[in-house]
Amino acid sequence: MRLDEEANPPALRGIRLRLTYDGTEFFGWQRQPGQRTVQGELERALARLDPSAPRSRGASRTDAGVHAIGQIASFDTALRMPAEAFVHVLNRDLPEDLGVSEAIECAAGYDPRHDSLGKLYRYVVRIGFTRDPLTRNRAWQLLPTMARRSIARAHRRPILEDWLDLEAMDEASRSLLGTHDFRAFRSADDVRENSVRTLTGVRLRPGFAGDPTLLAIEIEGNAFLKHMVRIVVGTLVDVGRERFAPSHVKALLAGGDRTQAGLTAPAHGLTLVSVALGRIASTD
Amino acid sequence: MRLDEEANPPALRGIRLRLTYDGTEFFGWQRQPGQRTVQGELERALARLDPSAPRSRGASRTDAGVHAIGQIASFDTALRMPAEAFVHVLNRDLPEDLGVSEAIECAAGYDPRHDSLGKLYRYVVRIGFTRDPLTRNRAWQLLPTMARRSIARAHRRPILEDWLDLEAMDEASRSLLGTHDFRAFRSADDVRENSVRTLTGVRLRPGFAGDPTLLAIEIEGNAFLKHMVRIVVGTLVDVGRERFAPSHVKALLAGGDRTQAGLTAPAHGLTLVSVALGRIASTD
Repeated sequence: MRLDEEANPPALRGIRLRLTYDGTEFFGWQRQPGQRTVQGELERALARLDPSAPRSRGASRTDAGVHAIGQIASFDTALRMPAEAFVHVLNRDLPEDLGVSEAIECAAGYDPRHDSLGKLYRYVVRIGFTRDPLTRNRAWQLLPTMARRSIARAHRRPILEDWLDLEAMDEASRSLLGTHDFRAFRSADDVRENSVRTLTGVRLRPGFAGDPTLLAIEIEGNAFLKHMVRIVVGTLVDVGRERFAPSHVKALLAGGDRTQAGLTAPAHGLTLVSVALGRIASTD
Repeated sequence: MRLDEEANPPALRGIRLRLTYDGTEFFGWQRQPGQRTVQGELERALARLDPSAPRSRGASRTDAGVHAIGQIASFDTALRMPAEAFVHVLNRDLPEDLGVSEAIECAAGYDPRHDSLGKLYRYVVRIGFTRDPLTRNRAWQLLPTMARRSIARAHRRPILEDWLDLEAMDEASRSLLGTHDFRAFRSADDVRENSVRTLTGVRLRPGFAGDPTLLAIEIEGNAFLKHMVRIVVGTLVDVGRERFAPSHVKALLAGGDRTQAGLTAPAHGLTLVSVALGRIASTD
């Protein structure tokens, strides 16, 4: 009966997606009028599937140019197909730089942002005298500092240790671990009152992906301020280039002055690797 | 004096370049009217530098979509700047998907194709139920065969051994080593008389670049027929998928029938890693 149907609209269920994307051609995660964004493309595909045009919720608001292997998003729908089927139905329709790798049933209204217990980001730095077309959208290319240029030139092949003092970077990264006020490591327009965050891991991986010219910096924490990962990376690289002593990081955490930290590392070196979720997600 | 200058044109020297490119947006190495090719873009940059508009010679005629870390090219010029300076002068002008990583003096007329003693190619295969935006232009994505689909589904994460019989592939690749008539492994339009080539290495690297879903197949040889690497890969993958027994490769080498080999693996999984050069290149 029509009246009954109107009184009892079809029950909504939640679907939780894991997304992978090449951020190069996206203006970041968040839907914005006139811009090609990840959320925008996902919602276009959802609207073609479900006439109620579901809105989506994401775990991380990745910036323009940032990539993801394990972004988490959710939406509510009255469609009654098996959760796993959304993987293939959406992938048929999404652009080639955005893909769904998992779809799981969850409660309607489920918000991965609130359920997130922590996130793992990876930032890739490349050293070399020449630019590298094959990693140009994935790694921040560094040139040697003047002080280290002659050492670097002496070896014919680029060697990470000639460019960056990895021991100093390692020392600096250890002082970032734990719970601190990260005010000095956020974008000036991030005005949230609470800037206390906890980093549970900062790891340097020289020779990342079997390539001796790459250094991956993996940063794991409970939550992040705006641009925090990129400012942490910019600061660690400045420690590696001997612009800052390793102890400068402690002073930044104590003083909270953004202008004394390193620059914001470019977005294209950054990948959201995974989101650790709580237990409120799954209905099973 | 003008007459003298005409009688004695400025002496030409050779410059040998190492090139890196992302092959995605190139219609292969070779200059072709109306197409964007690597050789075409290189020669446009050379012409802006040297009014005599030098022609270039390449070590490998990579196909459309094939990448290179170590392509070798050469050209002749009367310009008198230091050889190393060509790296930076050309890189300022080349598009961002093509870069020069080395420039060395060589004899005028030097042809890296004739000087090549061998080449190393890497082909990357990816397994997974869903497409992967981050490797879409670098790896050939395989789906599991029907026979292995249920095994693959039983494990939640894709496992290489569920998709491909790596031992069988390894056995097949060993029978490719050495000097053989590779007629069965070349494109139908490759009509060169001599199809005898020598493979000096065929290596499987599961978990390539730290990614458990990737398998790299590295193939090293003295010279290659048209599409030979891609047909070898297509055949090895068919051995891995149990379409062919490992011994089928020996029969192909003996019988020389292209129609009995595997399909030609797609170009975008292939990278020219390096070219081994002889001693006629350098003037030092």
